[in-house]
Amino acid sequence: MPAQFDPPSGTRDFLAEEFERREGAFAVIREVFARFGFEPLQTPAFERLDVLLGKYGDEGDKLIFKILRRGEHEASGEADLALRYDMTVPLARVAAAYGSQLPTPYKRFAMGPVWRADRPGKGRFREFTQCDLDTLGSASPLADAEIICAVHDAMAGLGLDGFGFQLNSRRVLTGLLEAFGVPASLGPAALITLDKLDKQPPQAVIAELADRGLDEATAAELVDVVGAPDAASRVADALKGSDQGVAGLDEVSRVLDLAGPLLPAERIEFSPRLVRGLSYYTGTIWEVTAPGVPGSLAGGGRYDHLIEQLGGPDVPATGGSLGIERILLMLPGDAAVRPGRLDVAVTVWSEELASRSFAFAARARAAALRASVYMGSSGKLGKQLKWASDQGARWALIYGSSEHEAGTVTVRDMRTGEQAAVAASELTRYLAEAAEAEAAEAEAARGAEAGGGR
Amino acid sequence: MPAQFDPPSGTRDFLAEEFERREGAFAVIREVFARFGFEPLQTPAFERLDVLLGKYGDEGDKLIFKILRRGEHEASGEADLALRYDMTVPLARVAAAYGSQLPTPYKRFAMGPVWRADRPGKGRFREFTQCDLDTLGSASPLADAEIICAVHDAMAGLGLDGFGFQLNSRRVLTGLLEAFGVPASLGPAALITLDKLDKQPPQAVIAELADRGLDEATAAELVDVVGAPDAASRVADALKGSDQGVAGLDEVSRVLDLAGPLLPAERIEFSPRLVRGLSYYTGTIWEVTAPGVPGSLAGGGRYDHLIEQLGGPDVPATGGSLGIERILLMLPGDAAVRPGRLDVAVTVWSEELASRSFAFAARARAAALRASVYMGSSGKLGKQLKWASDQGARWALIYGSSEHEAGTVTVRDMRTGEQAAVAASELTRYLAEAAEAEAAEAEAARGAEAGGGR
Repeated sequence: MPAQFDPPSGTRDFLAEEFERREGAFAVIREVFARFGFEPLQTPAFERLDVLLGKYGDEGDKLIFKILRRGEHEASGEADLALRYDMTVPLARVAAAYGSQLPTPYKRFAMGPVWRADRPGKGRFREFTQCDLDTLGSASPLADAEIICAVHDAMAGLGLDGFGFQLNSRRVLTGLLEAFGVPASLGPAALITLDKLDKQPPQAVIAELADRGLDEATAAELVDVVGAPDAASRVADALKGSDQGVAGLDEVSRVLDLAGPLLPAERIEFSPRLVRGLSYYTGTIWEVTAPGVPGSLAGGGRYDHLIEQLGGPDVPATGGSLGIERILLMLPGDAAVRPGRLDVAVTVWSEELASRSFAFAARARAAALRASVYMGSSGKLGKQLKWASDQGARWALIYGSSEHEAGTVTVRDMRTGEQAAVAASELTRYLAEAAEAEAAEAEAARGAEAGGGR
Repeated sequence: MPAQFDPPSGTRDFLAEEFERREGAFAVIREVFARFGFEPLQTPAFERLDVLLGKYGDEGDKLIFKILRRGEHEASGEADLALRYDMTVPLARVAAAYGSQLPTPYKRFAMGPVWRADRPGKGRFREFTQCDLDTLGSASPLADAEIICAVHDAMAGLGLDGFGFQLNSRRVLTGLLEAFGVPASLGPAALITLDKLDKQPPQAVIAELADRGLDEATAAELVDVVGAPDAASRVADALKGSDQGVAGLDEVSRVLDLAGPLLPAERIEFSPRLVRGLSYYTGTIWEVTAPGVPGSLAGGGRYDHLIEQLGGPDVPATGGSLGIERILLMLPGDAAVRPGRLDVAVTVWSEELASRSFAFAARARAAALRASVYMGSSGKLGKQLKWASDQGARWALIYGSSEHEAGTVTVRDMRTGEQAAVAASELTRYLAEAAEAEAAEAEAARGAEAGGGR
């Protein structure tokens, strides 16, 4: 394929099959989120540049796609608009713009493309779909737990299994630093290093903490507590003297009490060394991982001051984001999806009979089937049936001069090759019944398969 | 609302209700197009600038949103990418890129935003949805007729009525110019003027034709024929000597023969003065209008060389576009849509009982209802019920200490105010049955209403 016809670097064309697969997954997620009472929000693809700049740090600013001013201003080389970089800044703008017109709390989800001028790579795109859900205006752990349950149900609804939630609180982390006397200046770096205990041996983590300037004995103690198999209870003990720590533990246990009973057993656990990269979290933080899958599949937390920092009202907020592109890669291809393919392919035999064939396709559509006529130039049955087969058609209709004289249509079962002469006036009913029988058969086959699997 | 929080000029935020209304309409259209065997295609929001530039004329080029180069190249003030301006140029690129991997003919639809830096105005946006369907690779009138039928069924599926198709062929127009001896240099201007016969008196049109340099007697003759009440037959007579004209009439009558019988009576007619603005059409052209609605609601035609001119393969092509933003304005608001609103609102009474309330919401969702718990800080029943009412909830659940002791949940019918004590273990079944009864009642009410209306 000549590169000149490729989509721009880091972007993708979605042809029928992939499009249907993605839309099918999006529909499942939308349905689950709606059932939790989240409402959709769609903002424009671009925002004014000043709305976005300075919100994502210096590195983020560099990755924003900026849109050149237009008309006489184009020559200035300046930008005034920029493509949406995430769903959170537009949410803050909407919260500021619509204020009290929005429900309280405002529970919304947003699913759509965002654009980042990142270096494209395997699974990393410049145009990719984000899927966020957030609750603005509630400080209750109910809001945090609800987000977690909705994310769980969406992932389960997509057919995923074996994933798990790690739950922590920013205040637990603050409390740990407090309890172990880690200087405030070393705090963030120490937390990032601690988070590596999943991948690195304790000695390496202790060494890195010492490198970063932490007293070695303190580092060893911290790693001993946080890296212990019973870290949760060890951390709870260690935090007894810290107000922040106690508040964080309470927050975690309340969310566990709410969400835990609604999820399958051992699907969520307190993970005191979970840090999450983003500095704006203020309370609960969580991540979804699955064995054998690097990185996280979803993540989120409470960010009580961010909406105000982003230009919105000062409201408590909590939210989460599904790593939808990564999740899509994990979903099995659905063999049952035959996107845009025909159920009924109608052959065409002469200019005189073409309008009858054309009308037969309409009758098949009246039976809720996907149908179209042959539009090529071949007058050979073999070629037309090959086209029908290429279209994945279940049935082909043949209406030549003999059918015309007899007042019938020949319905060919493309799977068996059997043909039936059907009275033209009976065609809609015949096809509707055949399709119903087909659907019942498929249903029965799925039932048998599912039964066998148990 | 302070303008600083508005979306960028010419763009819109879609909050829940409008979002659901639009998505509902899009879903109807997608379903109809799929039933005709058209498959979806989604291309990136932006293309390389050189793919778009020069494809829309000088005026069009000025309306393209251009994206600044990034990183060290940003300072150059140059653009290398540009936002999608229509769906046709990306289609040509995809046809070039995927070639024989695509079905033949390639019948695809594309529905999504395009961006044009037009001056925003009433009903004119800089970000708006386009909805195109096209068939590449068939020269048959069946392809033209199929597009027309699909557009008709989509509009009818949206509940529109009273609209009609005007059908013509570019070759009829060429034939007319030939038959009346209009110099080739005057042709395009003469056609544009003729098209004004809908809005202007014949004398004004004759005068304008003469102004443009056409011999006045010829102008009068042309207007007499094309503007006549029986223009179709007068034009047919006039075209007898023109090969192009005869071919065009044949094309029109074949499409009428195919599509006419499938549409309601008088829904499509030959309109020999229909011109359509775009110069790339080569055969059939058509437009959909409705009485009292200025402009067209849909339009399209055959454009056999455009895909090649746009950088794609040389294939015959025909297509159409729904004026979806205009159509959306014509659709009635659907009172039955309660986007993102709750069916079941669960009150919360104490920290101890909150987890039970939270779990009751999950049970309601298991009955396929939209449910959530109260997340505010008020301990007053009145306030919590006001929240339930604001959420549009059909039922509110109350679970306080007395219910806790009795093992029941109080289910309040928010319409009647009646309350029932339901055993906690029976809640899912109770709600499922109540929802079913509710749905049956709504169904019966709709039936009665429809019956009464006939």
